[in-house]
Amino acid sequence: MTPDVKALLFDTFGTVVDWRGSLIAEFTAWGEAKGIDADWAALVDGWRGAYKPSMDAVRRDPGRGYLTLDELQRQSIEPLAAQLGIMGLTAADYDHLTLGWHRLKPWPDSVPGLTRLKATYIIAPLSNGNVALLTNLAKHAGLPWDLILSAELFKHYKPDRQVYLGAARLLGLRPQQVMLVAAHNYDLAAARGCGLKTAFVPRVTEYGPHQKEDIKAESDWDLVVKDLNDLADRLGC
Amino acid sequence: MTPDVKALLFDTFGTVVDWRGSLIAEFTAWGEAKGIDADWAALVDGWRGAYKPSMDAVRRDPGRGYLTLDELQRQSIEPLAAQLGIMGLTAADYDHLTLGWHRLKPWPDSVPGLTRLKATYIIAPLSNGNVALLTNLAKHAGLPWDLILSAELFKHYKPDRQVYLGAARLLGLRPQQVMLVAAHNYDLAAARGCGLKTAFVPRVTEYGPHQKEDIKAESDWDLVVKDLNDLADRLGC
Repeated sequence: MTPDVKALLFDTFGTVVDWRGSLIAEFTAWGEAKGIDADWAALVDGWRGAYKPSMDAVRRDPGRGYLTLDELQRQSIEPLAAQLGIMGLTAADYDHLTLGWHRLKPWPDSVPGLTRLKATYIIAPLSNGNVALLTNLAKHAGLPWDLILSAELFKHYKPDRQVYLGAARLLGLRPQQVMLVAAHNYDLAAARGCGLKTAFVPRVTEYGPHQKEDIKAESDWDLVVKDLNDLADRLGC
Repeated sequence: MTPDVKALLFDTFGTVVDWRGSLIAEFTAWGEAKGIDADWAALVDGWRGAYKPSMDAVRRDPGRGYLTLDELQRQSIEPLAAQLGIMGLTAADYDHLTLGWHRLKPWPDSVPGLTRLKATYIIAPLSNGNVALLTNLAKHAGLPWDLILSAELFKHYKPDRQVYLGAARLLGLRPQQVMLVAAHNYDLAAARGCGLKTAFVPRVTEYGPHQKEDIKAESDWDLVVKDLNDLADRLGC
C-alpha cells in the first residue's frame, strides 16, 4: 500500500503530545506553588479555542507579516485570563505559561513508536508550532526526530497547501513519497489534497473526557492505526 | 566563557564529514565496477573548486532564483567531467555521482562527540547543503542532530549574514546564545560578525595531503579544540 513512502510527517499537538493534560497538570501545580487559584482547565480549553481564529487572522492579513505560534499564544492568553477572572499574573508569568507549550508530554506510545519508525523512515513533525517550540519540545519529551519541519518555514499555517507541498519539496520527495500521520481528519484531508499519503491515529481524549470531534477516521485514509506502535507494526518496522 | 550558549551549530562538509576521502573512495569503487577509468581525485577536487564560484553566481544574481547545492553540483559536474576527459557517463550516472554528497562518511570523532554534546545542547548542522542532502547524510552517517538548519531555509549561502542570524532567529535565541563550530576560519569570522560564539576544529587533511588553508586558528576564536570529543570535554559534556 505504501511501498514508495520515504518520510513520515507527524502532526504534533494532540497526535504526538498530550497538550491538554500536560498544560492543566503543569499550570495547576504552578498555581498552587504561587498561591493563584484559577480554573486552569478553562484557561487551557479557552486558549486552544483561540488557536484557530488567531491563525486565521494571519491567513487573512498576510500584509501584517507572519506571526509564530508562540507569538499568537502570548497574544491570546492575556485577555483570556482577564475574561476568566485570573488576576495578578505578571508579564513574566504570561511568558512562562506560553512556554508551557514547549514542555508538553508525549502519549505513552509516541517515543517507542517513533524510535521504531526512525530506523526505516525519515521522521519529522509537520506542525503549526514554530521551530523553536518544536525543537525545545523534542528535547523535553525525547522525540527522536530526524529534522524539524514547521509551518514557520513556509510562513503559512496548516491546512494551507504551502505547508504540505513545501515539506515534500524540502525533503526532495514527491508528495506521494510523504505520509502525514495525524489525529485530525481536516489535516489529513488537506494533505491528501496535495497528494500526500495519510494515516489516522485516534486520540479520543485529546480534548478531554467529552471529546466529540475526531473520534474516528472520517475518510478512507491510507492507514488507520491504533497508535504509533501499531503504525510501526503495520509498516513492518 | 560560554555559559550562555544553548545551541551548537556545525559546519558540515569538512567539519563533520570527510567529503573528499568519501567521494574519492566511492567513485573509485564505482568506476571499477562500471569499467570507467578516470582520475576520480581530480574530479572531486575540481568539483569542490567549482563550489564557491557556483554559490557566488547565486549571490550575484538573486533574480534567477535560489538554486540548491544539489542543483549547483549537478550543473558543475558535467562540464568538469568533459574537461577531464571522463567519457561515457549518462545523465543517470551524473545524478548518482551528485547524490554521492548525501553518502559522505563522518570523521571518527564526529558521532561520539555529537552524541555527548546533544545531552546538554541543541545540536544542528548549519551548512550550505540543502535540507534533503543534510537529512539523507544524517541518516547515512548516523549524525544525531536535533534539527536540520540549512542555508536553503534562508535562500542565502554562507557566509551571508542571513544564514547565521536566520538560524538564531528560528531557534528563538540571541546570537550570543549560539556557537558555530567549523574547520574554516572564514565561516567563523562571518559568524562572529553576527554576534555568534565560535569554535575552531582543525581538519588538516580535509583537502588532501597537501592542504594549505585552515591548518590552524587564524583568530582568537572562543574555543579552539582538537576534535568534537575534545569540544565535549571542554564544554563539560
